Amino acid sequence: MASMFTVFPKTTHFLSQPLAKSHKSDFATASVSFPSSSRGSSTLKSLRARAGLIEPDGGKLVELVVPEPRRREKKHEAADLPRVKLTAIDLQWMHVLSEGWASPLRGFMRESEFLQTLHFNLIRLDDGSVVNMSVPIVLAIDDEQKALIAESKRVALVDSDDNPIAILSDIEIYKHPKEERIARTWGTTAPGLPYVEEAIKNSGNWLIGGDLEVLEPVKYNDGLDRFRLSPSELRKELERRGADAVFAFQLRNPVHNGHALLMTDTRRRLLEMGYKNPILLLHPLGGFTKADDVPLSWRMKQHEKVLEDGVLDPETTVVSIFPSPMLYAGPTEVQWHAKARINAGANFYIVGRDPAGMGHPVEKRDLYDADHGKKVLSMAPGLERLNILPFRVAAYDKTQGKMAFFDPSRAQDFLFISGTKMRGLAKNKESPPDGFMCPGGWKVLVDYYDSLSLTGNTRLPEKVSV
Amino acid sequence: MASMFTVFPKTTHFLSQPLAKSHKSDFATASVSFPSSSRGSSTLKSLRARAGLIEPDGGKLVELVVPEPRRREKKHEAADLPRVKLTAIDLQWMHVLSEGWASPLRGFMRESEFLQTLHFNLIRLDDGSVVNMSVPIVLAIDDEQKALIAESKRVALVDSDDNPIAILSDIEIYKHPKEERIARTWGTTAPGLPYVEEAIKNSGNWLIGGDLEVLEPVKYNDGLDRFRLSPSELRKELERRGADAVFAFQLRNPVHNGHALLMTDTRRRLLEMGYKNPILLLHPLGGFTKADDVPLSWRMKQHEKVLEDGVLDPETTVVSIFPSPMLYAGPTEVQWHAKARINAGANFYIVGRDPAGMGHPVEKRDLYDADHGKKVLSMAPGLERLNILPFRVAAYDKTQGKMAFFDPSRAQDFLFISGTKMRGLAKNKESPPDGFMCPGGWKVLVDYYDSLSLTGNTRLPEKVSV
Repeated sequence: MASMFTVFPKTTHFLSQPLAKSHKSDFATASVSFPSSSRGSSTLKSLRARAGLIEPDGGKLVELVVPEPRRREKKHEAADLPRVKLTAIDLQWMHVLSEGWASPLRGFMRESEFLQTLHFNLIRLDDGSVVNMSVPIVLAIDDEQKALIAESKRVALVDSDDNPIAILSDIEIYKHPKEERIARTWGTTAPGLPYVEEAIKNSGNWLIGGDLEVLEPVKYNDGLDRFRLSPSELRKELERRGADAVFAFQLRNPVHNGHALLMTDTRRRLLEMGYKNPILLLHPLGGFTKADDVPLSWRMKQHEKVLEDGVLDPETTVVSIFPSPMLYAGPTEVQWHAKARINAGANFYIVGRDPAGMGHPVEKRDLYDADHGKKVLSMAPGLERLNILPFRVAAYDKTQGKMAFFDPSRAQDFLFISGTKMRGLAKNKESPPDGFMCPGGWKVLVDYYDSLSLTGNTRLPEKVSV
Repeated sequence: MASMFTVFPKTTHFLSQPLAKSHKSDFATASVSFPSSSRGSSTLKSLRARAGLIEPDGGKLVELVVPEPRRREKKHEAADLPRVKLTAIDLQWMHVLSEGWASPLRGFMRESEFLQTLHFNLIRLDDGSVVNMSVPIVLAIDDEQKALIAESKRVALVDSDDNPIAILSDIEIYKHPKEERIARTWGTTAPGLPYVEEAIKNSGNWLIGGDLEVLEPVKYNDGLDRFRLSPSELRKELERRGADAVFAFQLRNPVHNGHALLMTDTRRRLLEMGYKNPILLLHPLGGFTKADDVPLSWRMKQHEKVLEDGVLDPETTVVSIFPSPMLYAGPTEVQWHAKARINAGANFYIVGRDPAGMGHPVEKRDLYDADHGKKVLSMAPGLERLNILPFRVAAYDKTQGKMAFFDPSRAQDFLFISGTKMRGLAKNKESPPDGFMCPGGWKVLVDYYDSLSLTGNTRLPEKVSV
């Protein structure tokens, strides 16, 4: 995967001027400021950051990893505290919090944050302003753990081997209203929601919130950590490239040429709008996904091939992993996906049909109206600074032999290759029409399904869409 | 009930000065403005309105009843339009909309308003500001009605006798996502929610939104219409009384002396804060309630006795009926109850334990955490101008022989008379402890349960709380 890593260091332009000069008025409508003094070279870097990239929610990126000099001391402190063991998904949320994807959150939610999230999809800050926050980032504990914590004001969070990995301070323990949390987040309580089954159904009756201090940067040691850039690292990379617009593309599926067309076309539109150097943040989700989604490692292989084959331009593309778990909570979750990318520096967000959607777990229909995600996102409080770019529908144009934007005036020329069709082809080692996906990327998919049948696992993704 | 009506005209003070002079800084934090010029007597009235009462949401009370001179013409127009028949609850919502309780809504919600309500409990206005809106005010139609409407841009709304009573213009028809609506509004989809069973479960698969014009003021001809003051009428009455603070008390149950204590104490606190003439808006809900609640007509009789018996001061109390249906949607609904009262001129809102709550329809517990209502209300976007007054717990103080605020330091002196206990007593024609409720009010309750047993209806209210 070495070639993928080279996506990052390839371009080397350094700006000789703050980016402010090439700003369009629609670049960042609320928070970009242009200091009129102190433009000496020593302040150039901070100026560039202020002017060039959208500000994080709350004005400052919240990073919760204890700085090196204090780690030893904090580890000593953690050793004596009551312990809360984290699940794999808890750990992913801790990762998310530690790097500031959920800025300005400073830890697992206390009740006031939880209630605002559930009811309003926003959190009000001390200065009266609001930030978007649509999914609860909470930590559940059971009765026994609650009893062990007793009156302690702090707890240590420990991994599956009981090693302390974080401290939660000034804690608040409150009731975990599971049914209400599920209903208000997913808009259904039907059994079979993947995240609910995995992370909520059997979780404890209490939630514990507090201020988080993480003892070491989170690593998974799965060969993919180098792709897990934090918002701070992404901002540095985007600044280094001199991005004057950053458009994020959230995905959890293989990239086909329809996606590629969309991303290329978005860049073209941004250039037309006057931006000089729009950068694509291709940002596959790396946390929990349902069993029938293509696993992260295979997706990363596939994305690598797409870049190798030149379908996307490595010069203007940053590939990185977004560490959040996937909730499949449709219009509620798409706000989280967008908000987190603001914190990583993105000021444009591409939204497709039925984002974060899935089939209803019980009824024969999609869980969400396919248009609600983009509508809700465009109206969401706290996301006013983000430019929403609706997905244009791409399909296979038989007359051109490639993916193209669907033209309803000649509908008969287009072939819609559904997820079911794509999976069937890959499973049977057949080829899709030329131009649907680059050959290298397609081979990764075929290999993945091959590996499934070798291990006797015949489950197939039920849906392939972004 | 003549004595009740006299509640309104009793006081006759007119202000000689605009109310602005006695304002406290916490009276209305956002929208009260104090024009520095044009204080001539001809503008006194409008000045008083601006300065004295909180502004309606959106700045202007939206009234949707067609003015007299145009009614004939509108009725002619309505006669030729496709028809949508309203249920009793639809009619109550139409009433609510027509008088501006839901200002700035101008009719049944279109999809963008519906989605913002479901996801954010707010609606963003054209100027970027937001108003609170937590419950969908929508009109459902079925497939057949949708087919009949076809391409028409307007429909007539008709009553149960097929008489056109309103026109809905510039209509938008969109899918009715019932499960999602229920889950996001109630935080559960358990069967047995009273409003859901009555108004949603068997309703149509489509919602129709648009601009509403109501052909005549809504009347129910049940002997209680004179108590149904519109927000505009209430504002006039409150101004006439020279209110410089208006505190609203939403209720759907008989008033006992604990309630009365709370209301009296609230007035005392407001006087201490420096207000000169705080007026209580005692505002029983008049629309749909569940079968085991005490019906409106009996509640109004009971409230009348409470005033007659001098438990509440008629000089400083306005009794009126709030025409909304009851959803029993807890923290979501309490926002609606509060927001609607802003539109009627209230700038203080008393919130109790578990407002708009009920027992879980399936599980043996309350549907909502008893504290969530007040917490959610205090954080709700768009309600920043409203002062939330949490309910202090009152109980029967055996040492004083009356209702008093609970003092935990001498808990043994207090008797909590639950709804179950109260109902049991009333049903058995027994008396509660002296001082729990005024005798006249108690007799109304006994009579009500008597009337039930006479008709063979033995259903009892499951809960009596505000």
